[in-house]
Amino acid sequence: LNSKLPDVGVTIFTVMSRLAAEHQAVNLGQGYPDFDPDPELLSLVNRAMLDGHNQYAFMPGIAALREAIALKTTQLYGANYHADSDITVTSGATQALMTAILACVHPGDEVIVLEPNYDSYVPAIRLAGGIPVPVALTPPTPSHPTFRPDWDRVRAAITPRTRLLMINFPHNPTGAVLNDADLDALERIVAETGIYLISDEVYEHIVFDGVPHASVARRPALAARSFVISSFGKTFHTTGWKIGYCCAPANMTEEFRKVHQFMVFSVATPLQVGLAVFMAEPRHYLDLPAFYQTKRDQLAAGLATTRFKVLPSPGTFFLMADYSAVSDLPEAEFARWLTLNHGVAVIPIAAFYGDPHAATSNRQLVRFCFAKRAETLDLAIERLRRV
Amino acid sequence: LNSKLPDVGVTIFTVMSRLAAEHQAVNLGQGYPDFDPDPELLSLVNRAMLDGHNQYAFMPGIAALREAIALKTTQLYGANYHADSDITVTSGATQALMTAILACVHPGDEVIVLEPNYDSYVPAIRLAGGIPVPVALTPPTPSHPTFRPDWDRVRAAITPRTRLLMINFPHNPTGAVLNDADLDALERIVAETGIYLISDEVYEHIVFDGVPHASVARRPALAARSFVISSFGKTFHTTGWKIGYCCAPANMTEEFRKVHQFMVFSVATPLQVGLAVFMAEPRHYLDLPAFYQTKRDQLAAGLATTRFKVLPSPGTFFLMADYSAVSDLPEAEFARWLTLNHGVAVIPIAAFYGDPHAATSNRQLVRFCFAKRAETLDLAIERLRRV
Ligand SMILES: CSCCC(=O)C(=O)O
Ligand SMILES: CSCCC(=O)C(=O)O
Repeated sequence: LNSKLPDVGVTIFTVMSRLAAEHQAVNLGQGYPDFDPDPELLSLVNRAMLDGHNQYAFMPGIAALREAIALKTTQLYGANYHADSDITVTSGATQALMTAILACVHPGDEVIVLEPNYDSYVPAIRLAGGIPVPVALTPPTPSHPTFRPDWDRVRAAITPRTRLLMINFPHNPTGAVLNDADLDALERIVAETGIYLISDEVYEHIVFDGVPHASVARRPALAARSFVISSFGKTFHTTGWKIGYCCAPANMTEEFRKVHQFMVFSVATPLQVGLAVFMAEPRHYLDLPAFYQTKRDQLAAGLATTRFKVLPSPGTFFLMADYSAVSDLPEAEFARWLTLNHGVAVIPIAAFYGDPHAATSNRQLVRFCFAKRAETLDLAIERLRRV
Repeated sequence: LNSKLPDVGVTIFTVMSRLAAEHQAVNLGQGYPDFDPDPELLSLVNRAMLDGHNQYAFMPGIAALREAIALKTTQLYGANYHADSDITVTSGATQALMTAILACVHPGDEVIVLEPNYDSYVPAIRLAGGIPVPVALTPPTPSHPTFRPDWDRVRAAITPRTRLLMINFPHNPTGAVLNDADLDALERIVAETGIYLISDEVYEHIVFDGVPHASVARRPALAARSFVISSFGKTFHTTGWKIGYCCAPANMTEEFRKVHQFMVFSVATPLQVGLAVFMAEPRHYLDLPAFYQTKRDQLAAGLATTRFKVLPSPGTFFLMADYSAVSDLPEAEFARWLTLNHGVAVIPIAAFYGDPHAATSNRQLVRFCFAKRAETLDLAIERLRRV
């Protein structure tokens, strides 16, 4: 079988979770909570099953859930998505990303990705026959201690063959967020070049320190050319339910749905019914920044008592730390070593680069997930103190 | 947005279900039950949620479900699939089909499809850059009143550029099933040409009249080159849960999973946990032929009292009927007319052809789904009597 993806191995999240399980390590690698969703949400899903919501959902998603998403994006971002023509419920954000890419990338088209990036982007582009064009985020400096996009470099990477620009803020794995000036810069790029965007905003509800999330849906000129993708997994502590969505103008949604209907057709009905009712209460997502900020601060304070050096995380449920005071190993080996010898699993940042062996992708940084119970974080910190 | 699928409209199942809902028609179109799954299954899923199975499943599916699938395929077909390396749980059979195609069809590769065929096959092949090569099933004759494959025509369609042959038995929409002689013919074709197969067997548990299902998994020489795809939706009356699976030898599964992990990553955890326990009781699928045979016979007997002429259905939960004594309309218009004027929605067979306007695809046949309560079938029959 002549492989379509010869360079792809098993995703780093599976590799590290398996290793963590084998060695009884505290798993701060793969991004998922070790606590349960709200019991009210579970009981809504159970009710949906008992009420007979077990057959195919309407292909773009059940109406109540699409309407709830339309309402939320209007209230939070002033967006103007129509439930009927602009919103599609997907089997997680991953499926939405793959669908958007397959819907508009033609063989030979270039797709700009910011580096580091989530590990599904590049294989999805390759499957569509596209050419990934990485543009590095500017690395942290003492005066600006988070990664950040350099829009001049993005602009310079755009050619007549550029079809799409993929962005992801709050950013996995670096925690970087956008601000108004970033949206201005993006608007200029889109106006000048007419490219389309995929904006992966799965951490939209996890932005800290009182900062509002800079969704591209806030800017009509951006929204008009964007697939804005999000997910309920990160927001409602249900990563295993695999329910996400894509908002895009009608003409883009039409192409998105052509692929969606033949990729999965529709998405688990009882889960959609439960989520539609649950998300009608805005507190269920508006409380999230405070909830996760406590966890971020707990982990950051704990790591401050170790030889790891924490980088600031303005968003997501991840933070990065520099381990150069601990070890000279490259990131992947260090992550393995830490799991085996100290019982804490983390993700090497190098896994988010096209060339994970390049020097620039091995900055001696690893990613910690803090979507964990306080006891779990304490146990990890205790172990990391011994490193 | 330059479309990747310019010829694709909204799938016929959505079109007809929407029309049925708008006109309060009895919906015998889209294939799904109008009755509920076993309450035991629902309670297993509820338990799984309460027990904390709400985060990412292991990427290829939870171990218990893959092991249950391995056991079932061994017991029923003498197959030898290993849960670890050969079985992947997917978001329905539709996702499994798309994944298998994207995993092995390269631009310019030819893929043979039997016609009529399920409407996701051709768009999935096109998305991969492949070239669909339709081979017609032999239409019914008085001496052989079901559609059937003509293996000589299949053999003749194979060229050095043929990558895959896609088959689907029990066959949607015609109800055709395979027998041992068909498997022999397939074995010869594979031995002579070395092609790969996708065998869509989602109706594997719905074969009537005591006939055993002729799974390609029964023949090691076929299994060695096949993606065998099935689904729990049709078997456990849960079409809306979107849980299916793909069995294939390790080398093929490896390529399948490379695409799977970036298309959906994993599949709804609580549903997987519930299904794993539920399917351990073989009665839950072994009782299915008797259950659906009663419904088939009810609908066939009812239609015998109308001006429709029923064709025999040896498998699936569909049957076809000839409406030439009722109307001269082409199939799509007839289906619409029947919904609007007589309150019964059906599927035109022409929708399963690459060229739905070709004379051969308009045989004045429509498909009825009999996965319905006895009252629903009675109501439909009563309405059809007036046609
Ligand atoms: C789909 S497994 C990866 C989960 C995740 O988003 C992450 O850990 O970055
Ligand atoms: C995914 S909707 C179509 C359901 C089905 O298998 C059919 O009606 O043929």
